[in-house]
Amino acid sequence: MYIGIDLGGTNIKGGLVDDEGKIVYNVIVPTEAKLGWSRVLDNIKKVISQFIGHDGVKAIGIGVPGPVDFKNGVVRSMPAISDAKDINVINELVKEFGIPVFVDNDANNFAIGELVFGAAKGKKEVIGITLGTGIGGGIIINGELYRGANYYAGEVGHIVIVPNGVQCNCGNFGCWEAYGSATAMIKKALSYKSRKILTKLSEYPDERIDAKLIIDLAKNGDEFCMNIVDEAFKYIGLGIASLVNIFNPEMVVIGGGVSLAGEFLLYRVRNYAMENIMPPLREGLEIVLARSGNNAGILGSAALAKIEVNRRG
Amino acid sequence: MYIGIDLGGTNIKGGLVDDEGKIVYNVIVPTEAKLGWSRVLDNIKKVISQFIGHDGVKAIGIGVPGPVDFKNGVVRSMPAISDAKDINVINELVKEFGIPVFVDNDANNFAIGELVFGAAKGKKEVIGITLGTGIGGGIIINGELYRGANYYAGEVGHIVIVPNGVQCNCGNFGCWEAYGSATAMIKKALSYKSRKILTKLSEYPDERIDAKLIIDLAKNGDEFCMNIVDEAFKYIGLGIASLVNIFNPEMVVIGGGVSLAGEFLLYRVRNYAMENIMPPLREGLEIVLARSGNNAGILGSAALAKIEVNRRG
Repeated sequence: MYIGIDLGGTNIKGGLVDDEGKIVYNVIVPTEAKLGWSRVLDNIKKVISQFIGHDGVKAIGIGVPGPVDFKNGVVRSMPAISDAKDINVINELVKEFGIPVFVDNDANNFAIGELVFGAAKGKKEVIGITLGTGIGGGIIINGELYRGANYYAGEVGHIVIVPNGVQCNCGNFGCWEAYGSATAMIKKALSYKSRKILTKLSEYPDERIDAKLIIDLAKNGDEFCMNIVDEAFKYIGLGIASLVNIFNPEMVVIGGGVSLAGEFLLYRVRNYAMENIMPPLREGLEIVLARSGNNAGILGSAALAKIEVNRRG
Repeated sequence: MYIGIDLGGTNIKGGLVDDEGKIVYNVIVPTEAKLGWSRVLDNIKKVISQFIGHDGVKAIGIGVPGPVDFKNGVVRSMPAISDAKDINVINELVKEFGIPVFVDNDANNFAIGELVFGAAKGKKEVIGITLGTGIGGGIIINGELYRGANYYAGEVGHIVIVPNGVQCNCGNFGCWEAYGSATAMIKKALSYKSRKILTKLSEYPDERIDAKLIIDLAKNGDEFCMNIVDEAFKYIGLGIASLVNIFNPEMVVIGGGVSLAGEFLLYRVRNYAMENIMPPLREGLEIVLARSGNNAGILGSAALAKIEVNRRG
């Protein structure tokens, strides 16, 4: 059994996960990010305590939305928690709970989760992509997560896809996630609304407009929503094509909130990607949806714990 | 001692290379690509024969301009040699010369050459980029070349850098090499010439216009050549930034004919790249020129032979 913790900006989700990736039971508590890191850490401990008495719990895995020095278990920063800077998460939790703790960023854990429990089981060369507020990536090479020289590999959301393009949250211009993320779709939707363009979006207050709503309206025939969605999907496909041309993977697994749009997304994204992938690199390539769905955070963190515990004997 | 063979569209270069990467002596013969594969193979054998009697020759490495199934030693295709399709190069040469033979594409060998004998000695995470007619790449991960699921990894010249951009030789639109290669610079130069724009380029016949001339004129103050060069260097920098954001390497090594422009290129490309690399990924990153220069093909192929012979004991 492994404890998987998914630290989000709004909620902390925790699950007790068995060796096959079944979530035996799970818990959700508010993150309270605005109250600062020490409060968030208390909430993480609260979640872990729910599972820790259980028989056969071997290790804890944690996924965080930010860059992590994986080797030393140091979270470098998390945008949602302003005082969380260079925090060693591991030492304190190991002291308190007495079992191994592993921390990595959530996109890396997503890829590991799909490798260990999900769509990429048994594969060796895999790109995991998370489509959400931003675009994240986890790179599996020879059956292991590739972390790069300083543990920052996989910032695929920040490949430049439109030179001198729109500004990204990272400060740079033209990044992939500024074109293919939920945030990009929402920005475009709000601009259509403010220009009084005829779209069903006008019936909703600004704060209700999210990627799910835009995609649902597109599915129901709203032309402007379809434009928004189709443009985002085209960029998502282009970015995936670039990654495939670089990595020659066996599989691309697509997860994150936006991927819950399912086949509607997959069909379009796959077509746009394939058009831009060099023919020999299409051979045997699978582009699929993640299996872990809403539980990706919990399963990915549990998968990290499983892999690392087994690696270290 | 290793024999390194560099199969180019115009010439076959061969060298006898010692364990430290010193070229003891070298040979060059015309490829005669238009006469077809069997003639080219005869010419390769002619070059190898020059070295084969030498004491202590352990293995032959060959670099070719096209995709290679490395494991089986099969060259899938070479644009310059139209009848070269799915050719097993190894079997015949091993039979003839009686020592191990290894074949891979020239961009992969470039990266290996810099790792074993050049600027990337001792590094573990390295991106090698060749700037020439196209843009090629070789990816070193954990001290070894990464070849991907079907041996096609590293097609970095075909990341999409301008959606719906100009058409690339591969047929696709907006590829990196359609903006940052020598070919891209030459196309732009010829278009300036044909539009009778005031540039020193007008003093040269079309067939004399190559990347070296354009860069030399730019260095000497020709404004339009400087525009061409600066735009290409900007795209080169952008593409490198994307690769760094994905891989988090310790080093990017730049080689290929265009890189012979030296510091003039490196200074600009490095600045453009750094602007677009996420700050934590700049930490400790080196962007440098290749050491192997004009001998990159010979040294890279010899390095491949050295690595593979040692790996197989």
